[in-house]
Amino acid sequence: MSALSPAPTVTPTKPVALDAMHHVAISVRDIDEAVKWYAENFRCEISYQDATWALLTFSNVQLALVIPEQHPPHIAFSHPRAEQFGPLKPHRDGTRSTYIADPSGNPVEIMAID
Amino acid sequence: MSALSPAPTVTPTKPVALDAMHHVAISVRDIDEAVKWYAENFRCEISYQDATWALLTFSNVQLALVIPEQHPPHIAFSHPRAEQFGPLKPHRDGTRSTYIADPSGNPVEIMAID
Repeated sequence: MSALSPAPTVTPTKPVALDAMHHVAISVRDIDEAVKWYAENFRCEISYQDATWALLTFSNVQLALVIPEQHPPHIAFSHPRAEQFGPLKPHRDGTRSTYIADPSGNPVEIMAID
Repeated sequence: MSALSPAPTVTPTKPVALDAMHHVAISVRDIDEAVKWYAENFRCEISYQDATWALLTFSNVQLALVIPEQHPPHIAFSHPRAEQFGPLKPHRDGTRSTYIADPSGNPVEIMAID
């Protein structure tokens, strides 16, 4: 760079916040058995449990254990414009979400940030 | 409570830290296609990408996209006593981990906190 070159212009940029994964849901053959195993092997909280699914809270994300006949395994993200992905369905716990699929067919839940 | 009842004894308890999920790995049919789709639909950083897998960083956890022939889909936890689960294998990125299976056969990676 010569001495006559103008100083490079630096445009201040606002750091971009990243989206958060809300939970991961994996299939298990028996909810009680799976909850017991994860709770014995990891420090997590049992936030919900019934015969068809359970929700375990870890420090950064939640792990849902589901019986495949009742709930599909999936990953779920909190999204500031969730409604752009489809009509949001309200759930019993007050959350609202829609399911889409990625190009490989993996179910992805898009949750509103309420 | 009568005036003669002893004051209840409160044992100070140290808050228990919860373990963290390090990443989730899901199967996709094509890494380039999947990276493009997730990067277009979510605010995430592409931390690694080659022909067989990619790693996307979200605000709280990482999402690995894998081709099933090369890497099994799995969930991975950081664990303070990872070595108790089996011999830890060092990886190219400096991490050390072992794979186990939950009672339903889901692969679970246990990563050392180094």
